[in-house]
Amino acid sequence: MVALGGLGEIGRNMTVLEHDGRLLIVDCGVLFPEEHQPGVDVILPDFTSIRDRLHDIDALVLTHGHEDHIGGVPYLLRERPDIPVVGSRLTLAFVAAKLKEHRIRPVTHQVREGDRSTFGPFDCEFIAVNHSIPDGLAVAIRTGAGLILHTGDFKMDQFPLDRRITDLRAFARLGEEGVNLFLVDSTNADVPGFTTSEAELTPAIETVFRTAPRRVIVSSFASHVHRIQQVLDSAAVHGRKVAFVGRSMVRNMGIARDLGYLTVPPDLVVDMKALEKLPPSQVCLICTGSQGEPLAALSRMANRDHVIRITDGDTVLLASSLIPGNENAVYRVINELTRWGANVVHKGNAKVHVSGHASAGELSYLYNLVRPRNVMPVHGEWRHLNANAAIAVRTGVHPRGVVIAEDGVAVDLLDGKVHIAGKVPAGNVYVDGSTVGGATEAHLRDRRTLAQEGVVTVVAIVDADTGALAEKPDFLARGFVHDERTFDEVVPLIERALAKAAEEGVGGSVQLEQLIARAVGRWADNAYRRSPLIIPIVIDA
Amino acid sequence: MVALGGLGEIGRNMTVLEHDGRLLIVDCGVLFPEEHQPGVDVILPDFTSIRDRLHDIDALVLTHGHEDHIGGVPYLLRERPDIPVVGSRLTLAFVAAKLKEHRIRPVTHQVREGDRSTFGPFDCEFIAVNHSIPDGLAVAIRTGAGLILHTGDFKMDQFPLDRRITDLRAFARLGEEGVNLFLVDSTNADVPGFTTSEAELTPAIETVFRTAPRRVIVSSFASHVHRIQQVLDSAAVHGRKVAFVGRSMVRNMGIARDLGYLTVPPDLVVDMKALEKLPPSQVCLICTGSQGEPLAALSRMANRDHVIRITDGDTVLLASSLIPGNENAVYRVINELTRWGANVVHKGNAKVHVSGHASAGELSYLYNLVRPRNVMPVHGEWRHLNANAAIAVRTGVHPRGVVIAEDGVAVDLLDGKVHIAGKVPAGNVYVDGSTVGGATEAHLRDRRTLAQEGVVTVVAIVDADTGALAEKPDFLARGFVHDERTFDEVVPLIERALAKAAEEGVGGSVQLEQLIARAVGRWADNAYRRSPLIIPIVIDA
Repeated sequence: MVALGGLGEIGRNMTVLEHDGRLLIVDCGVLFPEEHQPGVDVILPDFTSIRDRLHDIDALVLTHGHEDHIGGVPYLLRERPDIPVVGSRLTLAFVAAKLKEHRIRPVTHQVREGDRSTFGPFDCEFIAVNHSIPDGLAVAIRTGAGLILHTGDFKMDQFPLDRRITDLRAFARLGEEGVNLFLVDSTNADVPGFTTSEAELTPAIETVFRTAPRRVIVSSFASHVHRIQQVLDSAAVHGRKVAFVGRSMVRNMGIARDLGYLTVPPDLVVDMKALEKLPPSQVCLICTGSQGEPLAALSRMANRDHVIRITDGDTVLLASSLIPGNENAVYRVINELTRWGANVVHKGNAKVHVSGHASAGELSYLYNLVRPRNVMPVHGEWRHLNANAAIAVRTGVHPRGVVIAEDGVAVDLLDGKVHIAGKVPAGNVYVDGSTVGGATEAHLRDRRTLAQEGVVTVVAIVDADTGALAEKPDFLARGFVHDERTFDEVVPLIERALAKAAEEGVGGSVQLEQLIARAVGRWADNAYRRSPLIIPIVIDA
Repeated sequence: MVALGGLGEIGRNMTVLEHDGRLLIVDCGVLFPEEHQPGVDVILPDFTSIRDRLHDIDALVLTHGHEDHIGGVPYLLRERPDIPVVGSRLTLAFVAAKLKEHRIRPVTHQVREGDRSTFGPFDCEFIAVNHSIPDGLAVAIRTGAGLILHTGDFKMDQFPLDRRITDLRAFARLGEEGVNLFLVDSTNADVPGFTTSEAELTPAIETVFRTAPRRVIVSSFASHVHRIQQVLDSAAVHGRKVAFVGRSMVRNMGIARDLGYLTVPPDLVVDMKALEKLPPSQVCLICTGSQGEPLAALSRMANRDHVIRITDGDTVLLASSLIPGNENAVYRVINELTRWGANVVHKGNAKVHVSGHASAGELSYLYNLVRPRNVMPVHGEWRHLNANAAIAVRTGVHPRGVVIAEDGVAVDLLDGKVHIAGKVPAGNVYVDGSTVGGATEAHLRDRRTLAQEGVVTVVAIVDADTGALAEKPDFLARGFVHDERTFDEVVPLIERALAKAAEEGVGGSVQLEQLIARAVGRWADNAYRRSPLIIPIVIDA
């Protein structure tokens, strides 16, 4: 078994199981780039280790419909479109919508909790789990080598809106049978206690709808069906009509409604045109952009770049988390909305968000219920994996049975014991515009330098024999602070370097370009304490 | 009165008061750049509006020694070195150390709580306030126009380590006298309740020292004398020796110790050489880098780029906040430290940090005590200023007496009433390498494009008469994903554009460069969905 993603990072979750020469894949997600990865759209798992074995794949099992679990599916199916895609009804609907944009029609196999299906040598049983999207599944995989249980993403809300709780009876039963390897969601393992129930948000959401003098504008994750359900229910009670704003929100809520995951009272949801005719106190908008994404509806409202203009007395409800790295973007949106006169209610000042992942308390219950032989924490950065491992050990799992692995580390299950069996490539595959995998760490390094320091292009027409400049070099700088005279002082330095090169018989344009780059680089550092990227161009006179 | 910084942002606090043609400045800080301001070192207030009036300045009053209050002083004193700098003992010591690096010897005027000093028409009284650095002062300024009271940064810890509490009796007395305009720190105005006392961190810090099996490595702000005091005390109790690591930590703790703000038990602090000879269980290091700054000690330890090598069993205590925007950097450090085997204790998993600012509860006490005529929230983004204003109104200040102003907005106090009286320049002044103010928004826009999209330089040698290319153009790309063949497809597009230009009689190299840039830009967008910065260079054949 090898995780191609999700270990040491929150995202691009993908686990490959192998038995009898056949493969089963659990999830295929994307990772969102951090600020040191500029220009990258998303990051995929590296498919190198399975690329030659695509026809050995018996199934791709998807635990739920979040991007970090399904976002990579189009890229995997590009390589082999007929891999059977297995998942619950809502998960498959979200995947199908995504694949449609990529013009791929998948071969799907719909399952639900309690089902047991065999894919090659993999006997899979699906177990209901509660998460921040409906219809999540854990999967128990029985092979000749033993029973592997993968939680997917989960928490243990005892009062979810859909009454579909994490099926602890099934976990207990599997524990009785004997779980040889337990793969457990680590995202909140370092959060003490228990994740609050979604139902406990009702009072704060109600308060917003009860007290808002004018429009209510709600932003949340476009896949958080239950959160949106709570908003719809409150809107209905307080006599407001609702419109969805933002492509993914409109699309996902349409799917959720059509499939019965979202219950919409008759005539509650209307289109923008109808909404605009109502008095503000009867209006509710539900939109994308809760993470401060610059192109999403909420950011555009904050920047007055949207048909919906925030005015004094509007209430904005950010019913969402604050994903690390997005803080400044979100606070910028909150500040701008505040400035236009909106009252912004968010998790910092009201109880309007709970996490979708099990905290340390819930994990301890789960370990004590399952009593697994071996544990491998998944879905987390090192601090999360480490905290999860500590909980497993504390509940009595033998420390040698707890494996903290990195992406690409192959873990074998043999005679009930786990062994590290090698390593396969598991680097970052960057989706960058329409290129996949073309962007390298070197590109990102260049981009970081360009961002911090700018670029200076130097065009020098040089007489190859004498090393003399035919004319004053041209300097074209961007992002590097300069005026018309700035580069005058570097010309003599270039001249000197070229003259010296000519004396020494150095004359190839590549060598001269290096010389020029070095002279300009040294000058920029000395004179301005900057290290711009320098692009030297030498042309024969 | 005009704030040149600190309104709508957390940082570069600077307020300019004018009376009878004379000026008094309160604080002169820097703002740290956000991720959309790449390459910028720090951001200064814009001195434009006072540049012609430097000799009207009677004093620069510094409320305390944090960078966002004193970081801009060297840049202001560069313009007039003999501006009298007024502050408490520790504040002046921190400023002097900073100015020494800039080779400026300031004219200082030391004050302490209870002092009353006159600078031109400004009669200043200084009041003790408690904050996350010792020796903080609020300042009451009496002029012919009335009494202005500025809190500086403060909180109301009732049990500070140095027993120097915020002097509420003085605030009450000034309230009795009648405060015409009250400038109040807004940083935590949107945090409900009361800021926890520094003293309540003792148990968690003690636990670290009691239970750590090997070395204890503490990282905190290099100015947080009381936090470091707690660490020293705990280290002493548990028989550990201490070394300071990191330039600013060594410097500041030296100053604090010399002046008696930091009490160091005899023989507790040793140098690194002595420390290395001790068993790990007797070692404590106190270092910089609690915000994940890449060049600070802790990040370098995390990256194995420091003489101190983290090993299994080390305990790292991050006794600090997580400033918004630094999350990913800090979590990266925590993950790497965890990976090397360290147990990382931080505010996410233990009570090891409290804020330095008054929360909403404390602010309500203060307003009720002072009962100001007019209020102007300072030190905060819009969401903070707004929350602070709401508290003032709730305590009974008339809404018309509460001014939420932006940087540069001139506020007049006349007959006990406040009026908006105009606006002065208050844009961002960027310190960028050794240039001050040279970097513009256009530079930052270019840098963001360079970061996201990279740069493509195109060198074309063109026959001006025929518009024909003398040879295949040269393409030099950085940060833009390409291979040797990528640019082949754009050559015919350039040829076509040049031919068309020749037909139409367009021939200047500037025009041809624009044509080429447009052709390449369109191609990159169509073929790769990217928009690199394009630098076209046309050379006459």
